[in-house]
Amino acid sequence: MTQDRYAVIMAGGKGERFWPLSTTRSPKQVLKLFGSKSLLQLAIERLNGLVPPENIFVVTSAELVEATAQGAPELPKANIIGEPFGRDTAAAVGLGAALVKARNPEAAFCVVTADHLIGDLDVFQTTLRESMQLAVEQDVLITMGISPNFPSTGFGYIESGESVSHDGEIAFFNAERFVEKPDLATAETYVDSGNFYWNSGMFVWSVKAILSSLEAHHEPVAAMANAMLEHVGKDTFDAALAEEYGKIDKISIDFAIMEKANNIIMAKGTFRWDDVGSWPALQEHFPADVKGNVVLGECESLDSTRNIVVSEERLTALIGVNDLVVVQAANATLVCAKDRAQDVKAIVQSLQKRGGYDGLL
Amino acid sequence: MTQDRYAVIMAGGKGERFWPLSTTRSPKQVLKLFGSKSLLQLAIERLNGLVPPENIFVVTSAELVEATAQGAPELPKANIIGEPFGRDTAAAVGLGAALVKARNPEAAFCVVTADHLIGDLDVFQTTLRESMQLAVEQDVLITMGISPNFPSTGFGYIESGESVSHDGEIAFFNAERFVEKPDLATAETYVDSGNFYWNSGMFVWSVKAILSSLEAHHEPVAAMANAMLEHVGKDTFDAALAEEYGKIDKISIDFAIMEKANNIIMAKGTFRWDDVGSWPALQEHFPADVKGNVVLGECESLDSTRNIVVSEERLTALIGVNDLVVVQAANATLVCAKDRAQDVKAIVQSLQKRGGYDGLL
Repeated sequence: MTQDRYAVIMAGGKGERFWPLSTTRSPKQVLKLFGSKSLLQLAIERLNGLVPPENIFVVTSAELVEATAQGAPELPKANIIGEPFGRDTAAAVGLGAALVKARNPEAAFCVVTADHLIGDLDVFQTTLRESMQLAVEQDVLITMGISPNFPSTGFGYIESGESVSHDGEIAFFNAERFVEKPDLATAETYVDSGNFYWNSGMFVWSVKAILSSLEAHHEPVAAMANAMLEHVGKDTFDAALAEEYGKIDKISIDFAIMEKANNIIMAKGTFRWDDVGSWPALQEHFPADVKGNVVLGECESLDSTRNIVVSEERLTALIGVNDLVVVQAANATLVCAKDRAQDVKAIVQSLQKRGGYDGLL
Repeated sequence: MTQDRYAVIMAGGKGERFWPLSTTRSPKQVLKLFGSKSLLQLAIERLNGLVPPENIFVVTSAELVEATAQGAPELPKANIIGEPFGRDTAAAVGLGAALVKARNPEAAFCVVTADHLIGDLDVFQTTLRESMQLAVEQDVLITMGISPNFPSTGFGYIESGESVSHDGEIAFFNAERFVEKPDLATAETYVDSGNFYWNSGMFVWSVKAILSSLEAHHEPVAAMANAMLEHVGKDTFDAALAEEYGKIDKISIDFAIMEKANNIIMAKGTFRWDDVGSWPALQEHFPADVKGNVVLGECESLDSTRNIVVSEERLTALIGVNDLVVVQAANATLVCAKDRAQDVKAIVQSLQKRGGYDGLL
């Protein structure tokens, strides 16, 4: 049955939040931040035994197709699809649906991201397998909710409703409500309530279910997907995609569908999950030294605590500094207060405006 | 009369306090931190018109002779003298006295350093000129005291006594007392008193006066100087210097002579002077931006104030950080709390102990 399972890996990240190590040419998903493998490679490996490589599509930006293909040699090159420009996740999902439909209009597929870290592989695969089974049996849209282990203000939440009966290990619930990133007090009430889950941005559905839902709730993306269907595998694909993407607006799949549809089911994900959203996330994934410093690379420090140092090309020396992120890349070095890591994006944008830094961004 | 004036420039600094930009192979005095010229070049230029180039000797470490000669093309190569190992300033002064005596036993010479920044060139030259005049006329040791413009705890002080009558513009006083670096309260009383001056480490004396003073107060250095006299300009010089330096202890000219002799006169230096002792000194010599950041090179910053950034090879980006020193060098980057800049030395020593960083130190 694995030939009926497909996967669309969304790998369109611009990598701004991991600047200066990540750049538009080398975004977060292709960085080997976590050992010898990139996040994209890890994402592909996680599908091993569940979705055959020829059924895995990667949607990335056109300029990253080469780098992505090189980083994913186990996939057919034709499965690496480059978007001419970003149109957010609804478009990427619609495009993925067209790619899968061209192969098998009856199939279910999962949408996973290339820039998350996921643990407990068995649980993850069981969750996806049972979700795909449910998705071919029923006309539902399945979203992955992650059991929260702390009141994060960095993620959106899904409120779960009635349990959905199902033959398997994984718990499914009706998805009652999607909420945006909350403040801390609200996040605490969510976590205490026991029926709020982190919105992971991973989905499972049949081609039919997602296309009919797009038709109903956000028709332009459905039209794009239908138009693209006849170009799949042909030389006309890139030109058609540029034309069709030109007709649609940027909108996330959450806004376009998830907050509107009423056939949404949440799979309860009990595997470890982190979106590795910015530099401080590294401290969740690497051991700290006795002073609380997390160091990737070479660092000499004196009276310095709780810093995150990425210094793989050159030595970093710290004296009397605390709670900093210090990242040395080939052509730039970032020194950032740890609680300001979300503003790395702002620096990148500011450099873009100023101009003259193309090679660094 | 200029042919009777000589100068010995002490350029033996190890450059630890300006690491990682300065290294043992490229110490502070040869760095071009202050525009297009190194501190050594500036030191030589300051003697222009006062001491002819052929009468200027530079005493540095043996391993820096080549780099120093290249950085000082206006001097005869033979005037760049390399010490086989450091024996502190008394030895360098004794060696300088031997070098000058070999040319003219009746001459006076000044001892200046290669790692200070000095302003008000006219005042500086007048001070040296009148000091050299006094030094050939009288059997005195002249030290340069600098009128303090703040209660520095980073310098030693000289207490001035009776005024010395003299035909010229510069004020001379008997030097009553040399004191080590004081605490802040003591420094404040010094500055308030009006008769304490910063000990600049610059001197003027005749060959006769300094050699007889060394004979009286620190005989081993006088013996070394006398022994070296016959080797000046000969092939035997380097071997003899290694042998003679091997016989003497490390001692500063302050301890060996200045705190003991009773024929010491202080020239009142009213020129601007800074020993540029560590990274924060840069803020005295370069303008700050509106946020108080002093930047040499390329820096993009967001909500960051009062930082010192030296980033001539690569971009530095700062987010939400204050009062840091950030220095990017070819193979290492330093991130240091500004009030901990004196500990740069400790990091260098720690890296030396650890080993494997020879190219960086």
